[in-house]
Amino acid sequence: MTRQRLGVCYYPEHWPQSRWSVDAAMMKGIGLSFVRIGEFAWSRLEPNEGAYRFEWLSHAIEALDRAGLKVVLGTPTATPPKWLVDKMPEMAALDADGRPRKFGSRRHYCFSHEGYARECDRIIEHLARAFGGHPAVAAWQTDNEYGCHDTVLSYSPVALQAFRRWCEARYRSIETLNEAWGNVFWSMEYRSFDEIELPNLTVTEANPSHLMDFQRFSSDKVVAFNRRQAQIIRSHAPDATILHNFMGAFVDFDHYALSDDLDVAAWDSYPLGFLERSSHDDAFKLRYMRVGDPDFQAFHHDLYRACGRGRWQVMEQQPGPVNWAPWNPAPAKGAVRLWTFEAFAAGAETVSYFRWRQAPFAQEQMHEALLLPNAAPNDAYHDVARISKELSSLDARVETARAEVALVFDYESAWAWRIQPQGEDFFYFDLVMCFYRALRRAGLSVDIIPPIASEVAERRLILAPALFAPTRDFSEALAKSGATILLGPRTGSKTADFQIPADLPPGALRRIIDIRVRRAESLRPGARIRLSGQGAFVRWREFLALGESVTPEFTSEDGETALARSDNVLYLAGWPDEELLTNVLRRVFIIAGMSTLALPEDIRVRDNGAMRYIFNYGAASTDISALVGEETLLIGSCLLESCGVAVFRRRDCFHPAAQNTSQEATTK
Amino acid sequence: MTRQRLGVCYYPEHWPQSRWSVDAAMMKGIGLSFVRIGEFAWSRLEPNEGAYRFEWLSHAIEALDRAGLKVVLGTPTATPPKWLVDKMPEMAALDADGRPRKFGSRRHYCFSHEGYARECDRIIEHLARAFGGHPAVAAWQTDNEYGCHDTVLSYSPVALQAFRRWCEARYRSIETLNEAWGNVFWSMEYRSFDEIELPNLTVTEANPSHLMDFQRFSSDKVVAFNRRQAQIIRSHAPDATILHNFMGAFVDFDHYALSDDLDVAAWDSYPLGFLERSSHDDAFKLRYMRVGDPDFQAFHHDLYRACGRGRWQVMEQQPGPVNWAPWNPAPAKGAVRLWTFEAFAAGAETVSYFRWRQAPFAQEQMHEALLLPNAAPNDAYHDVARISKELSSLDARVETARAEVALVFDYESAWAWRIQPQGEDFFYFDLVMCFYRALRRAGLSVDIIPPIASEVAERRLILAPALFAPTRDFSEALAKSGATILLGPRTGSKTADFQIPADLPPGALRRIIDIRVRRAESLRPGARIRLSGQGAFVRWREFLALGESVTPEFTSEDGETALARSDNVLYLAGWPDEELLTNVLRRVFIIAGMSTLALPEDIRVRDNGAMRYIFNYGAASTDISALVGEETLLIGSCLLESCGVAVFRRRDCFHPAAQNTSQEATTK
Amino acid sequence: MTRQRLGVCYYPEHWPQSRWSVDAAMMKGIGLSFVRIGEFAWSRLEPNEGAYRFEWLSHAIEALDRAGLKVVLGTPTATPPKWLVDKMPEMAALDADGRPRKFGSRRHYCFSHEGYARECDRIIEHLARAFGGHPAVAAWQTDNEYGCHDTVLSYSPVALQAFRRWCEARYRSIETLNEAWGNVFWSMEYRSFDEIELPNLTVTEANPSHLMDFQRFSSDKVVAFNRRQAQIIRSHAPDATILHNFMGAFVDFDHYALSDDLDVAAWDSYPLGFLERSSHDDAFKLRYMRVGDPDFQAFHHDLYRACGRGRWQVMEQQPGPVNWAPWNPAPAKGAVRLWTFEAFAAGAETVSYFRWRQAPFAQEQMHEALLLPNAAPNDAYHDVARISKELSSLDARVETARAEVALVFDYESAWAWRIQPQGEDFFYFDLVMCFYRALRRAGLSVDIIPPIASEVAERRLILAPALFAPTRDFSEALAKSGATILLGPRTGSKTADFQIPADLPPGALRRIIDIRVRRAESLRPGARIRLSGQGAFVRWREFLALGESVTPEFTSEDGETALARSDNVLYLAGWPDEELLTNVLRRVFIIAGMSTLALPEDIRVRDNGAMRYIFNYGAASTDISALVGEETLLIGSCLLESCGVAVFRRRDCFHPAAQNTSQEATTK
Repeated sequence: MTRQRLGVCYYPEHWPQSRWSVDAAMMKGIGLSFVRIGEFAWSRLEPNEGAYRFEWLSHAIEALDRAGLKVVLGTPTATPPKWLVDKMPEMAALDADGRPRKFGSRRHYCFSHEGYARECDRIIEHLARAFGGHPAVAAWQTDNEYGCHDTVLSYSPVALQAFRRWCEARYRSIETLNEAWGNVFWSMEYRSFDEIELPNLTVTEANPSHLMDFQRFSSDKVVAFNRRQAQIIRSHAPDATILHNFMGAFVDFDHYALSDDLDVAAWDSYPLGFLERSSHDDAFKLRYMRVGDPDFQAFHHDLYRACGRGRWQVMEQQPGPVNWAPWNPAPAKGAVRLWTFEAFAAGAETVSYFRWRQAPFAQEQMHEALLLPNAAPNDAYHDVARISKELSSLDARVETARAEVALVFDYESAWAWRIQPQGEDFFYFDLVMCFYRALRRAGLSVDIIPPIASEVAERRLILAPALFAPTRDFSEALAKSGATILLGPRTGSKTADFQIPADLPPGALRRIIDIRVRRAESLRPGARIRLSGQGAFVRWREFLALGESVTPEFTSEDGETALARSDNVLYLAGWPDEELLTNVLRRVFIIAGMSTLALPEDIRVRDNGAMRYIFNYGAASTDISALVGEETLLIGSCLLESCGVAVFRRRDCFHPAAQNTSQEATTK
Repeated sequence: MTRQRLGVCYYPEHWPQSRWSVDAAMMKGIGLSFVRIGEFAWSRLEPNEGAYRFEWLSHAIEALDRAGLKVVLGTPTATPPKWLVDKMPEMAALDADGRPRKFGSRRHYCFSHEGYARECDRIIEHLARAFGGHPAVAAWQTDNEYGCHDTVLSYSPVALQAFRRWCEARYRSIETLNEAWGNVFWSMEYRSFDEIELPNLTVTEANPSHLMDFQRFSSDKVVAFNRRQAQIIRSHAPDATILHNFMGAFVDFDHYALSDDLDVAAWDSYPLGFLERSSHDDAFKLRYMRVGDPDFQAFHHDLYRACGRGRWQVMEQQPGPVNWAPWNPAPAKGAVRLWTFEAFAAGAETVSYFRWRQAPFAQEQMHEALLLPNAAPNDAYHDVARISKELSSLDARVETARAEVALVFDYESAWAWRIQPQGEDFFYFDLVMCFYRALRRAGLSVDIIPPIASEVAERRLILAPALFAPTRDFSEALAKSGATILLGPRTGSKTADFQIPADLPPGALRRIIDIRVRRAESLRPGARIRLSGQGAFVRWREFLALGESVTPEFTSEDGETALARSDNVLYLAGWPDEELLTNVLRRVFIIAGMSTLALPEDIRVRDNGAMRYIFNYGAASTDISALVGEETLLIGSCLLESCGVAVFRRRDCFHPAAQNTSQEATTK
Repeated sequence: MTRQRLGVCYYPEHWPQSRWSVDAAMMKGIGLSFVRIGEFAWSRLEPNEGAYRFEWLSHAIEALDRAGLKVVLGTPTATPPKWLVDKMPEMAALDADGRPRKFGSRRHYCFSHEGYARECDRIIEHLARAFGGHPAVAAWQTDNEYGCHDTVLSYSPVALQAFRRWCEARYRSIETLNEAWGNVFWSMEYRSFDEIELPNLTVTEANPSHLMDFQRFSSDKVVAFNRRQAQIIRSHAPDATILHNFMGAFVDFDHYALSDDLDVAAWDSYPLGFLERSSHDDAFKLRYMRVGDPDFQAFHHDLYRACGRGRWQVMEQQPGPVNWAPWNPAPAKGAVRLWTFEAFAAGAETVSYFRWRQAPFAQEQMHEALLLPNAAPNDAYHDVARISKELSSLDARVETARAEVALVFDYESAWAWRIQPQGEDFFYFDLVMCFYRALRRAGLSVDIIPPIASEVAERRLILAPALFAPTRDFSEALAKSGATILLGPRTGSKTADFQIPADLPPGALRRIIDIRVRRAESLRPGARIRLSGQGAFVRWREFLALGESVTPEFTSEDGETALARSDNVLYLAGWPDEELLTNVLRRVFIIAGMSTLALPEDIRVRDNGAMRYIFNYGAASTDISALVGEETLLIGSCLLESCGVAVFRRRDCFHPAAQNTSQEATTK
């Protein structure tokens, strides 16, 4: 099993060469193992066209190598230099208003521009040839944060041409496309693929099928762009570990698909920045201002573990205030350590901090680092030194096992409900997070899964809220799985073409629960569909017609089925508030025969193999002895302080249900 | 008198031909009489330039005809097909930012583009020739919802040229225009009509006179576009009934002017969608979420009855949740019936539902219909079956009589205060609605009228809030009318050139009430100008100087005249809150010698000739026996349920004042 | 000493010539001395290219002269006529979206366009030649409200070229620029000045150094544009008094720098409009709706007195409701007089009202004036008649003396924190206003100063919040000054290149207080860093490391130094709420040995030499006898009415500390 380790992001090009070995020694001194470099350095690697300058990079790698550090080398394609942009100005993406997105920051390119793709091939080819065999280069990062700053969708002429060809490849005949999109509506029919336009600047909203295909096309372009990089690297370094650093709450392309070309999925975890940018209300943001949403990071750890098929890491861990959120508070004392162990508990191979030293210049000068701009250690430097010691003492390793509970998260669904929310606050990501949070508050470890058949086996419980258009394969796998299944709302409500299924939602899923959704309504804030004593639907509610085999498990006060059940399959006919979701899951756990934990407020639990981690996201110390039982804590104490972490090794016979389950839980 | 009937909107091109006669039989089965078709079908009528394909339309009409249904045939000009747009890309409207509005939804044309107008001539010519004489074609609809999606104003080069010519025709000499607009201000003077620009993208706001004339020009263009269609249809079908389907709360062109070329004014009534989009506060929207604003539909019924000079109908009646509002809840049980009878009570010839069957594809797939996508009947199908039976039992017919109370609604006024609100929340439409609501809550039936002399006669009470620039003719008619007249605020505050009248507002209206408005102030939310015990002004308040013949009827606590009176003419010097408006109208009714009804909350009353309708927009059953008296209810009961409708035939001698007037009402 | 006088703005071109002498006599009759004319009249001065028409202007000047009025003549360059714009369409500024800003209002030019600058030279040359020697022309106003409507920044091609040359002149070599901007970050390096782009439409935010230099460049362009005008006027009228009318809360160019080419700094004071547009909360806006922020005008009086090096005036004083704020209420009775005396108390040479007569046409028709559109006197006409009499009775004159208290206000700082707020509500202007308000509520008269060495001498207290990048000279002057100095937050946190100082903030200021700011955090609304019993930090907080000579004067509840002190220098480590700022200043006044006044709520005091003015901005009459003591009031009474003004002549021996200081004040 892989030993869990620490890393950092470093920009040698920002500092004098004389500093590099000093930095390397300091890094090693606090227990870091990996150093990511190079991903924004194109203007230093090739200051003029064809004039490669790799010597400095070699020196930097050597300095790190000499200190015993391993390098993650980034391809510099997120920041093409000015000469390159000037050479092919039409490489710029166009925004939805048709304006070119200019040079002067980063990610100033259109994924559909073949000329730029060839430039990328060229620089990566040279880099891979130069460093692909270097023993200190442990991994390669492709580009940086694909899609950041809203860069997946481009409305450029080259994107238009590419989209037409993509449509042609998908539909073969224009008649098929017209049929699939329902273009007879409003006379939107095309006579040839060359008549197709991009779906921006339309008078009113474009056809959802059109928007969905443009989103798919755009996602495919990102995947292809990345694949090209991976292939070139592999051609020179066949054993290279290739990764990319994804972001949080970001769904603009299909991360599962892109990850197929990666060895490890990485993500950049900024708990405070993401919280500030989230749709949570002000009270929630104030409450967790210095520690972040207790479930947001864990969700992404699970998501990217799925993307990486078990292999994942944090590439950029927030070490202090950042510069890019609406407000940028300092983390609570202990929060950096809390976040780090939460990642390791979820099976991260590495947690890497961003960045080593705060740059005194340019856009991110207010983004903190392990070192201050004047090279003095900042708070996180000391945090990391402590963490690395604790990590050694735990001999922490990645352990992977399929979780009993699987929650479906699907990129097409995210696109679908963004394209057609039908109510202004129908946010797919938030809905899935509600489910995730409720599962985690029940003390369960969860796998996030894509809606594919191979993920279904060996589950006790599968949840699939708002799943856009499940495939026949996936539906069949569910049917055969034997697991308890919770569907809805909106699950199966469209075909892949973005049409309503011929015999109404949930379409193909009716084979596992015989209902028809005959009506859906969206609900403005304040509107609540109550279920007596069990909570309410908010935002969204559906009206079901039940087949004979289906019984109403819960009913709303206005007499509609709120939760339908057919044996071990349930369908939830709306967006549940917290109370209702808790009650629904309580019922579901009983049906699934699952035991849960009664966790105190703000306490979270995660198992990594035999190691159990307990986290306190609250502001007050909390007694967790009921969760620890007879075990001996390796780290932490039973009165767990704010931001505290407790770790113990579970006994083989350990069975939480025996001691700690909530009342309604049943033993398997 | 015309018998009141039901209809539906249908898209045969969306369904297999084999389905058409099934649908037709079902329509007939629930008592429908009219079916609107064809209005978005250009790409099927002419899939390639000049290649007309009308056979399917003939078949569809025949299928309907065979079932005994009449057809309303729409011209397809709201959705020019792609080949046509590609042939003349400059037909696109440009938005205020100068961006072309692209193909991919609907209404993608500029009203000033002569090339496109000729294409419309051509297709209509062919359609009218083919179907103008068809006995099943009972009426023609021109285009669809002119102006929808903000399409009246276009900033295209062809619009610029046409605007210059329009100005030339209006002003003859550039000096006259400079004088009328006050262009000496800020050196905005032009030397020729060819120097005139469109009023977009100016550094700060453009001249209000410039904006007003651009709005008038744009309105004229819509009127001319429609007239051209009407003329072609009439040339082939001299007896054709021509109508257009207008929208709600929509004022971007002059609907009175356009209606001069129509036989019947129709409108598309979506009570829940319009409520969600309105400026009402959240509490109001929550309260009426499933039934709509109790007065909004009635207002538009009266407005479009005025437009159609007595002949009007609902072309699209909401049957369930729609897809286009911020939130789209389901109507309450009974709401569709309530809305339908509210329209018939106001004299609608037809109420036509939108649409027959929910399309599973494209932009409106979440818009409900009488049938579900799978052709099963949805709720509204059953509602309609019931309504048609009740309609027969009532033998309901259109009865028209001039109402004693007239409320002026004027498109130029709407434009004027949008151009120059002076306070951010001075919304003309909302102000007129306040007056309308207060009248309706007093149980009065109201005529909405344009500010023209011929509408003045035979009135007991005329109200004209915020009337921009009354003509001399209208002012004279008011002076001679003998009616009680309530003016203000802002009434007469401008000349037609958008200048302040030479001797101050109310300009020409000073002949009927000798006041001068020497100051106007707008008031932020929370600021209130109180009148002791009688309510307050909000949003807007004026300071009056009174002539000798004028007395202050109401005075504000800070000592200014709030309501001025000169015999039977009154001027209200501000925007009244609900309490103040009630008190003002109470006084006005006494002066006018009018009796009113004391209606319970959420109950509304409407007379259609001898038939009195009572509606319950509230959530609870309400005792209406005081409103019914000795009469026998034809429909409904004296304990009127939520969404309930009660109908009885008034006795000839029936005199509401004798039994049901509010205390302060006086007998005529 | 200059006698303080009244003026008005007048547009003879709006009225018939026959009216001019009538108006002039009326102006004289109410005691006006100065009349500003001409500043928007280009289309009348040169209706066609080269066809000058100055006769009407001569006549107008003569009419005013004959009545004994002096003229302030404006250059008409804010409103180039249509023919000029059509001749060189590329003179238009481009907005940040790249759209040309069109003709049709005013300020439609790019400051970088040399062609337009030459046109301005030409018209000014002709005007100066014609009127430069006219005895009635007392002063010249350049252009009008530079920068109004967001016109300083232009993204046009000519601006781009000019910016490249500006960068070249500043940095000499591109390597120096790359270093200064830190362009190695994100490969933003340029190889030549011709590769530099304007910082708009970048994918994410541009480099702050880039944005700062573009702001500096743009400011320089305004200064150069104005200098060119001043030089031409002076070449024909060597003794001309040249002024410009600045605005309120407007920082888009460096007003100190521009004022170096002026003799008098003027500003346009609209207390109600500015309040409505401010960032104050609704409660504050409602409370002061009719009188304005009690400190906003005073702040600007002091600011523009600094700009004018002692010589300043109000060019446009609000006389009634205006037309341009979100809401436009009427001033309270007495407010116009209150505002006028507040300006004179601060040493204004002239208070000039905008405008003489309300125009019935065009954009500002809802902007009130001394006369109504029909030439009848409006409220402010009578106010002015009273004021001019009182002014005579006081024999009011400008008296200037350096104030003991100086508050630094710096344009680069305003730009810096707009470019890099780091927290959404870090508004530099608001922060400085907080300090100003607290000083004024302590009864202190304050000088606003730029951060330059020559302003430091003879001060007892200097405050410099959020000063971006103090120069070495200024730092040294502070070090030598002997004054009590209050710095922070953010003061000295950047170098002039917009980098973090090499050894951390406060950079060069560490020589006067040995601290390092190791961390800064921004705080969302609701987040408070409490100091027990002394208030809290909001919005912003810093973490300090203290040198040996520094002691924590205040400490936050979480244990960080909130106010650091080194002898007479203090550093405030956050944005104080009102309570904290009061407590901090109380301490600072003691250290500085300053006495203060205990003013009742809404009462303000200002000394102009030996004359003390007391103002009541509250809604209720207030007893001010404690502030008056033994003195005899020349104007007003000890029970000062709402909007009241009281004036008395201070005895030479008058010493407020003896009678009226707050408890904690110490005697000097």
